[in-house]
Amino acid sequence: MALNVYLSGEIHTDWREQIIDGAEGLAVTFSTPVTDHSASDDCGVAITGPEADKFWHDHKGAKINAIRTRRAIELSDIVVVRFGDQYRQWNAAFDAGFAAALGKSLIVMHGADHQHALKEVDAAALAVIETPQQVVQILRYVLNGTLPV
Amino acid sequence: MALNVYLSGEIHTDWREQIIDGAEGLAVTFSTPVTDHSASDDCGVAITGPEADKFWHDHKGAKINAIRTRRAIELSDIVVVRFGDQYRQWNAAFDAGFAAALGKSLIVMHGADHQHALKEVDAAALAVIETPQQVVQILRYVLNGTLPV
Amino acid sequence: MALNVYLSGEIHTDWREQIIDGAEGLAVTFSTPVTDHSASDDCGVAITGPEADKFWHDHKGAKINAIRTRRAIELSDIVVVRFGDQYRQWNAAFDAGFAAALGKSLIVMHGADHQHALKEVDAAALAVIETPQQVVQILRYVLNGTLPV
Amino acid sequence: MALNVYLSGEIHTDWREQIIDGAEGLAVTFSTPVTDHSASDDCGVAITGPEADKFWHDHKGAKINAIRTRRAIELSDIVVVRFGDQYRQWNAAFDAGFAAALGKSLIVMHGADHQHALKEVDAAALAVIETPQQVVQILRYVLNGTLPV
Amino acid sequence: MALNVYLSGEIHTDWREQIIDGAEGLAVTFSTPVTDHSASDDCGVAITGPEADKFWHDHKGAKINAIRTRRAIELSDIVVVRFGDQYRQWNAAFDAGFAAALGKSLIVMHGADHQHALKEVDAAALAVIETPQQVVQILRYVLNGTLPV
Amino acid sequence: MALNVYLSGEIHTDWREQIIDGAEGLAVTFSTPVTDHSASDDCGVAITGPEADKFWHDHKGAKINAIRTRRAIELSDIVVVRFGDQYRQWNAAFDAGFAAALGKSLIVMHGADHQHALKEVDAAALAVIETPQQVVQILRYVLNGTLPV
Amino acid sequence: MALNVYLSGEIHTDWREQIIDGAEGLAVTFSTPVTDHSASDDCGVAITGPEADKFWHDHKGAKINAIRTRRAIELSDIVVVRFGDQYRQWNAAFDAGFAAALGKSLIVMHGADHQHALKEVDAAALAVIETPQQVVQILRYVLNGTLPV
Amino acid sequence: MALNVYLSGEIHTDWREQIIDGAEGLAVTFSTPVTDHSASDDCGVAITGPEADKFWHDHKGAKINAIRTRRAIELSDIVVVRFGDQYRQWNAAFDAGFAAALGKSLIVMHGADHQHALKEVDAAALAVIETPQQVVQILRYVLNGTLPV
Repeated sequence: MALNVYLSGEIHTDWREQIIDGAEGLAVTFSTPVTDHSASDDCGVAITGPEADKFWHDHKGAKINAIRTRRAIELSDIVVVRFGDQYRQWNAAFDAGFAAALGKSLIVMHGADHQHALKEVDAAALAVIETPQQVVQILRYVLNGTLPV
Repeated sequence: MALNVYLSGEIHTDWREQIIDGAEGLAVTFSTPVTDHSASDDCGVAITGPEADKFWHDHKGAKINAIRTRRAIELSDIVVVRFGDQYRQWNAAFDAGFAAALGKSLIVMHGADHQHALKEVDAAALAVIETPQQVVQILRYVLNGTLPV
Repeated sequence: MALNVYLSGEIHTDWREQIIDGAEGLAVTFSTPVTDHSASDDCGVAITGPEADKFWHDHKGAKINAIRTRRAIELSDIVVVRFGDQYRQWNAAFDAGFAAALGKSLIVMHGADHQHALKEVDAAALAVIETPQQVVQILRYVLNGTLPV
Repeated sequence: MALNVYLSGEIHTDWREQIIDGAEGLAVTFSTPVTDHSASDDCGVAITGPEADKFWHDHKGAKINAIRTRRAIELSDIVVVRFGDQYRQWNAAFDAGFAAALGKSLIVMHGADHQHALKEVDAAALAVIETPQQVVQILRYVLNGTLPV
Repeated sequence: MALNVYLSGEIHTDWREQIIDGAEGLAVTFSTPVTDHSASDDCGVAITGPEADKFWHDHKGAKINAIRTRRAIELSDIVVVRFGDQYRQWNAAFDAGFAAALGKSLIVMHGADHQHALKEVDAAALAVIETPQQVVQILRYVLNGTLPV
Repeated sequence: MALNVYLSGEIHTDWREQIIDGAEGLAVTFSTPVTDHSASDDCGVAITGPEADKFWHDHKGAKINAIRTRRAIELSDIVVVRFGDQYRQWNAAFDAGFAAALGKSLIVMHGADHQHALKEVDAAALAVIETPQQVVQILRYVLNGTLPV
Repeated sequence: MALNVYLSGEIHTDWREQIIDGAEGLAVTFSTPVTDHSASDDCGVAITGPEADKFWHDHKGAKINAIRTRRAIELSDIVVVRFGDQYRQWNAAFDAGFAAALGKSLIVMHGADHQHALKEVDAAALAVIETPQQVVQILRYVLNGTLPV
Repeated sequence: MALNVYLSGEIHTDWREQIIDGAEGLAVTFSTPVTDHSASDDCGVAITGPEADKFWHDHKGAKINAIRTRRAIELSDIVVVRFGDQYRQWNAAFDAGFAAALGKSLIVMHGADHQHALKEVDAAALAVIETPQQVVQILRYVLNGTLPV
């Protein structure tokens, strides 16, 4: 068994790199959203032309990003969603709901202070953890049956 | 054609009542989450026994609430999700993602100040509006073909 | 057995009324798109506010109409699609493709002059006919087993 | 992530070649309908024998072509549909509807003059563009996160 | 619980009437194909016009009949398929395969002499019986839990 | 919202009656397996004829019972599975797995002594409780939002 | 595009070999049932032990064969079903119905004398042909767009 | 055709090794749950932190194990479930029900003494056998058509 893992959510820290580095040697293929913030915001107008209205500027970008994110979620076995302290991160929760409805295994990563606000998301998850290292430990256990010593 | 409409999201204003009242006479059946905040928070322990740990207290409640909300979303034709100014409302965005993955028609309600943060959710919607009256106008048009004068 | 029938396509002649009148007394529930042309074109901006750009004007309207048409197609057993002589009618062909992918029984109505242009749509249909009366005859036969005398 | 892309619609210009050439080096596998017009029209009778009636001549061909096109759409992640100035192109709109119902990411390509006639198709799309170069830019961004400079 | 039961197969004896009469008072809704043999054979040309070629004559009829039979099978909980001594009855076996793939409960009725020829169909069934009375006994037991005395 | 609830598992105590009585007045429709033990064991041979081999005796009965139980589970919103002290009850666990794979809301009822043995089943459930009264409390809360006082 | 093709039906002539030989060099992977008649008939008892009753002897064999045939049909893009002159071949028609319900492309091969008896099966097919050579021609056209000269 | 086979159930004897060794050279990929009993029991707390309550200790472990087992079952063509003499093995029956609902081919392995208790599980299976050697014989026959001599 090999695993496809989609890493959704916060894009301002290096949590994805920590997971990908930690999982080196495991049979895991990772996918992510585009994490270049300005490219992600502007892709719609950069390719299809400018919009006077910010709503449509964002709308066109969000749809092109959806080509990537929806497909990545559909192809994944596990979706890891990280909630950080900054921003609203409604897209992360949206991804979690989308993944849950498709029956994907959901792993939610967040600090203890967000526990109550995330209770519905956590209730849909197969694991709730706080650090990238714990994600790696889960992937290693799921694939190889070995636990951290 | 009759419509089943699920009203997801903010529970601290009377937006649901405004929609339900405004839609009187239309062939719409509404469903909602339990909107009694303390009942919703405590249902798990009230029925299945107390938990020392707040995480499990919330976890048991969120799962019992999921019996209602998942079923209501699955039965709905349209899911209206309202984002207000208070709280994180990650459960609202989770519902939106869940509904989108099931192919439900999504209507998102929020003020202009949340436009950028909700761009991914809006991009999955068939209508983005600001007021309960606009939801009623959409329902009336979808059912009867009549527009506001 | 009762039948749900969606009547898609041309909106400038009375073919829908002929079918609905002809099927009186049969266990059929019909659904249609909004056939008031200007309401259909303007519903988006009438409810959610004006757009400077015609593309977004149309876009908002088309999405609100999709709430009705997608649901009606999903609920239908049979989708009848009529192609007339006027306009491009790409939305009719889009509905036909949508219905085919969902496994709906497709009945296509068009004159002999469009036969070659519609060959792919016809190939997905269970009946290709020219008149509303023939649709009524099919519905009567499917429900009651009686043929025209 | 690699992408399967189906190129549907107009067969009289070289738009497919422009996309395929432009996407060289990207992890994209393209599929197309048979674009030899006479082979496509006559495949049914050439293999299964002649028909006196043009309807059945076309019918047999359209069904054999459907073996290829349905499968290609089902296997695709993205369906690009191009509408040109010639012919009715109802099969292109049919493919778009078929792809939409299967949840494929839809990219629609057409000139500004067809905007109103294609509003329902555009409303189901994740991008609406005018040139093959824009399709390539979308594919490159979706795969690599890089925008045109 | 109420049951929808589709009665497929042989149309030259009164086995359907025996089941429907025997099940009087049970919460069962029966559906059947059109059992008027000549209407069933000729419905296509009677409604959509004559065909010179017997293949297309039959083809048009079979497709219109499919509007009824596919829908009835999709709506059913149980599909009863009877194989008699006359004719090839490939359509009965086709219905059985169609029903099996949809996960319907299959009851197969045939005499002992066809046991070996029907072994694949029987292997997909939840009951294999010989008489209409046994079908009624199964329906009564499934609904009410009562066995024949 | 009304609920369909299937009551699976132990058939030697009156737990089903306690739930059904307790839920009087709630919008719940209950379904159950045939709970007459000998009828359930012998239905196959009683209707389709005796078997010399106990395996086939049981096999025929289990399949006829499956017509009822599979359909009831498919139609249900909630599946309640009770594990008691007697017998192996592998069919109860089988029903739980079947319901879980279909995305049904699972409520598992068992005493504390079976907690470890049922951990995988409990992990798939939205509530784990010990008494019929708790099931009624969940149903009342899910439907009406009222908690036990 | 490569194709998975399942060859169902008659096992007493070399039609499968003719297709497989004729398709050499094409991107097609073929699968078939076990065509060793006695192995196919006896596999159940040979592996799981003898049965006194012919019904169960056949039943056990048919189920083990179903492990292979169902999986092969599910994995296929195209199902070719050949009806010959001998035997009832109800399993071939069952496979055709099973494949049709799964949305597979169906090619039916039979002589003109069986045309009327197979009209329902033919109506579900995308091609009806008489010879293995025609199957090869269809596969070549579907893959490469080239017609027989 | 190659096969993915999931081996579910009893973890205290070497039945999995016997099957895997016996199937050497066949085109089979096997997957299993984690069979290290203490790792399987403790994986939840080892990775995500200790729990005071045994229920939650087990709950967290069972969910992480579910990431592996659900995915393995979903990817499998055949699920083999072995019931032994020890323990309740409700998770094995749960896996069998889960696999049955997904339409997987089910092979059940158990001794004659459990026949009556497993009749519902056996009724959903395509083969019921007693030894690992018989599983290997089935796999060899399904893949190669060869029977034990």
